[in-house]
Amino acid sequence: MEPKDKKDWRFSLHEIIYESNTRAGKAFDVGLLIAIFTSIIVVMLDSVEHIHRQYGTLFNRIEWVFCALFTIEYILRLVSIRRPVKYVFSLLGIIDLIALLPSYLSIFFIGAQSLLVFRALRLLRVFRIFKLGHFLTEINFLTQALKDSIRKISIFLLTVLTLTIILGSIMYLVEKRENGFSNIPESIYWAIVTITTVGYGDISPVTPMGKFVASIVMLTGYAIIAVPTGIITHDLALAARKKKHKYESCPNCGKEGHDSDALFCKYCGSSLYK
Amino acid sequence: MEPKDKKDWRFSLHEIIYESNTRAGKAFDVGLLIAIFTSIIVVMLDSVEHIHRQYGTLFNRIEWVFCALFTIEYILRLVSIRRPVKYVFSLLGIIDLIALLPSYLSIFFIGAQSLLVFRALRLLRVFRIFKLGHFLTEINFLTQALKDSIRKISIFLLTVLTLTIILGSIMYLVEKRENGFSNIPESIYWAIVTITTVGYGDISPVTPMGKFVASIVMLTGYAIIAVPTGIITHDLALAARKKKHKYESCPNCGKEGHDSDALFCKYCGSSLYK
Amino acid sequence: MEPKDKKDWRFSLHEIIYESNTRAGKAFDVGLLIAIFTSIIVVMLDSVEHIHRQYGTLFNRIEWVFCALFTIEYILRLVSIRRPVKYVFSLLGIIDLIALLPSYLSIFFIGAQSLLVFRALRLLRVFRIFKLGHFLTEINFLTQALKDSIRKISIFLLTVLTLTIILGSIMYLVEKRENGFSNIPESIYWAIVTITTVGYGDISPVTPMGKFVASIVMLTGYAIIAVPTGIITHDLALAARKKKHKYESCPNCGKEGHDSDALFCKYCGSSLYK
Amino acid sequence: MEPKDKKDWRFSLHEIIYESNTRAGKAFDVGLLIAIFTSIIVVMLDSVEHIHRQYGTLFNRIEWVFCALFTIEYILRLVSIRRPVKYVFSLLGIIDLIALLPSYLSIFFIGAQSLLVFRALRLLRVFRIFKLGHFLTEINFLTQALKDSIRKISIFLLTVLTLTIILGSIMYLVEKRENGFSNIPESIYWAIVTITTVGYGDISPVTPMGKFVASIVMLTGYAIIAVPTGIITHDLALAARKKKHKYESCPNCGKEGHDSDALFCKYCGSSLYK
Repeated sequence: MEPKDKKDWRFSLHEIIYESNTRAGKAFDVGLLIAIFTSIIVVMLDSVEHIHRQYGTLFNRIEWVFCALFTIEYILRLVSIRRPVKYVFSLLGIIDLIALLPSYLSIFFIGAQSLLVFRALRLLRVFRIFKLGHFLTEINFLTQALKDSIRKISIFLLTVLTLTIILGSIMYLVEKRENGFSNIPESIYWAIVTITTVGYGDISPVTPMGKFVASIVMLTGYAIIAVPTGIITHDLALAARKKKHKYESCPNCGKEGHDSDALFCKYCGSSLYK
Repeated sequence: MEPKDKKDWRFSLHEIIYESNTRAGKAFDVGLLIAIFTSIIVVMLDSVEHIHRQYGTLFNRIEWVFCALFTIEYILRLVSIRRPVKYVFSLLGIIDLIALLPSYLSIFFIGAQSLLVFRALRLLRVFRIFKLGHFLTEINFLTQALKDSIRKISIFLLTVLTLTIILGSIMYLVEKRENGFSNIPESIYWAIVTITTVGYGDISPVTPMGKFVASIVMLTGYAIIAVPTGIITHDLALAARKKKHKYESCPNCGKEGHDSDALFCKYCGSSLYK
Repeated sequence: MEPKDKKDWRFSLHEIIYESNTRAGKAFDVGLLIAIFTSIIVVMLDSVEHIHRQYGTLFNRIEWVFCALFTIEYILRLVSIRRPVKYVFSLLGIIDLIALLPSYLSIFFIGAQSLLVFRALRLLRVFRIFKLGHFLTEINFLTQALKDSIRKISIFLLTVLTLTIILGSIMYLVEKRENGFSNIPESIYWAIVTITTVGYGDISPVTPMGKFVASIVMLTGYAIIAVPTGIITHDLALAARKKKHKYESCPNCGKEGHDSDALFCKYCGSSLYK
Repeated sequence: MEPKDKKDWRFSLHEIIYESNTRAGKAFDVGLLIAIFTSIIVVMLDSVEHIHRQYGTLFNRIEWVFCALFTIEYILRLVSIRRPVKYVFSLLGIIDLIALLPSYLSIFFIGAQSLLVFRALRLLRVFRIFKLGHFLTEINFLTQALKDSIRKISIFLLTVLTLTIILGSIMYLVEKRENGFSNIPESIYWAIVTITTVGYGDISPVTPMGKFVASIVMLTGYAIIAVPTGIITHDLALAARKKKHKYESCPNCGKEGHDSDALFCKYCGSSLYK
């Protein structure tokens, strides 16, 4: 995005709305975050019955003000970008639209206003504040490590899911219906509650045999929680090493991209530490 | 397994059923997984009372279709392998048989159908899908690390079990029968629920002394959960290093199997990094 | 702080009260800790109704003795330091004052005595005992690692908070008011209870859809708990390396501050290990 | 312990009872473990009321048989060792005595038999089985790492305890007595239940303010659980490195004890890897 005429109002608007390098851009980002946060607080308070009864009308008006503001913001976003379609179908674009719709839907459908809670999704924009501070390196670092871990974590979660299906099914056989394990999906829900060590206690084993099986489930959960931790710790260490050596170049040939434990340049063979 | 006549139908069948390199093999694996998954969903839904009352007869028919399919699959597996006995007594073979039996048993014994939940064990075949994708390296890596950890984790679990027996017994003395700690096995169950931080709350200490002992149990559990994590993290790091150096050979003598921190070949003494 | 006349009583007092190198200083620190601990035990016991009814008057008297002691201590702290204002507005100074006020406030306002629980904040002085023992290195090491982690942990906690707001809002829509999710803040509280794997069970999903969403929340919490652990483990390792190389100087040029994996001096290029 | 006459019966007895290198020694260890385990199972089952009513008399007789056996074992231990006093006052000696006493006390005091649960402490002998297998290296390794961590873990637990006292006291002020937080020790118990993520739910916040404070407690617990894990992982890595370099000697001067990352001997300066 490098327009020739930098005075172009569209470009300036883009700089303010989409970027945060300029003063106006930072102010816009901070202001937007405050607006999002306030509007969510209003939706939250409005959901509390005794507050709703007292301030319901006020909240309704505030809601429409925010709705207007966010609509204007959405239009400005469409106007100031070169390819509006790309924004509309981007993750943030879809979220912005979802956050707007309930207000308008509530005109036609009674109860649609309760969908306003989806405005909470706009909180994801909170991560833009990191662009404002010095958190960028840390967030990049974490994102890198999580990206590296994603496959291993998926395998782990699939294993846990398979385990909960098997253990939940066995528990359905062991405990009878009258003890809360009324069907297999319910038993699988119990197995997830147990293996993740959440343990609500809404369903808990009653028979000695059930308690025995539950003990095994718990100890399994206790032992395997270590696996994702190990994976992420490991990948953080790798990400750290990568970061470190990213810009280190060979003193002889100047090429980059050496392994973290490399002592000699992998291109010309001369020592990296000379 | 290298038959001379590659056109042999048995070999082709083997390739399809047991391997997943060919197109047909992949299709078979994916199809089988879908069949297993669907059949488990049916068993699950059938266990929900109000769904069973409505669709019970339909589910019963679907069940028999799956039973027929899996029986054919089992027979094909027996036919297409050189040593059927080896398959029958392998882990997957036993699971496949266990998953089949309940349907046939239900003809003779009423209620045997509830054993169909053991079909969930067949879900373990889900890990075959990793053969289809690029997950193989990751799963090998994780398996290696877990294998290395198994002894240390066993020691850890034995320690935790001993602790729960001792702490559960003490709790049985401290809290009286009327507070839910009605016997020692029950108290040990409570200790496991507590030390693993599951905390159902179906049994919880009532007396001040009991709460004091429980606090110690909780803090112990909180502190020692770190141990398996530490172990696995450590062994992941070791497995990563092993992987890295597995196929690295000495540039001088060509021998492999050097330690991860080796700078010089342990066989001929020349630098590994020259 | 190096006064010319070392016999100065103010200086001696300072040494006793603020430092713990001398015998008297150590004795003062230990005595103070015992006094704080005893006074907190008294406040605790006094809060238990049946003990209060029996020993209430005795506890009241002990309270006033401790109040007098801590007032004297506070005055001595003010007197023996050069810049009393600096102490008054330091963290420990504010805590010391907060711990004193309730006793005096209770003369004018009935019930102010219950604020005595803030005396528990003085327990933070317990960390001074580490100055007495050989724990100093360990505590410095841990503090260093935590300082390094603070940014990453903040990002993590912000992510978790955003997640709980979004997931709690969705849950408010899925489960109805009659199932305990009576408003959005309540649902967010539930999401925090669940994602941190605490799981009281005071609010728990009732509908199948709610249980499904809850399962996702739990598995998410189970998988992401690994992140802070990974971060801290990683930063502990970094802190350990920093500590190690802090005072290591180049044998050739004598300069310090080399990286943990440096083999050659980054200033003069000569080997650090020669 | 090197007696001149190896045929000495006392020495043979010592070899059998205290060591496990010989065949007889291994058999004795395994036999003892089975006896301990069986006697504990009997005590456990005897605590279950309906089993006690049926088999109480039988269990009582079995109890006395085990009591006789363990008494003989205790006497043999005293006889076969050179300094019996040392054994009597060793940890295992005290446990062995504690495990014996309840049976004899039950003759004089009714109810003393319930102290038999302390026999569970003898289960600690289970760790002797590691001497029989190949677990010795692993257990040494883990013990080393835990020893290194003990100071850091103590600091951590002290911090957590201080936190729970402060947070519990605040919660006592925020929530009223009628909500379960009936006194400060009770509130501290709640804080421990919450910060360790056990979460029984026997006491849980009721007021919005209380739920807010509880959320902070939970997120704190969620974030700081990472600390002990980090510590142990780190110390496991250190222990691993120590182990590795323990017996590695300099090829030039033959001296041992080099750091894990040493490339050159710290005594003579020649390369450790030549």
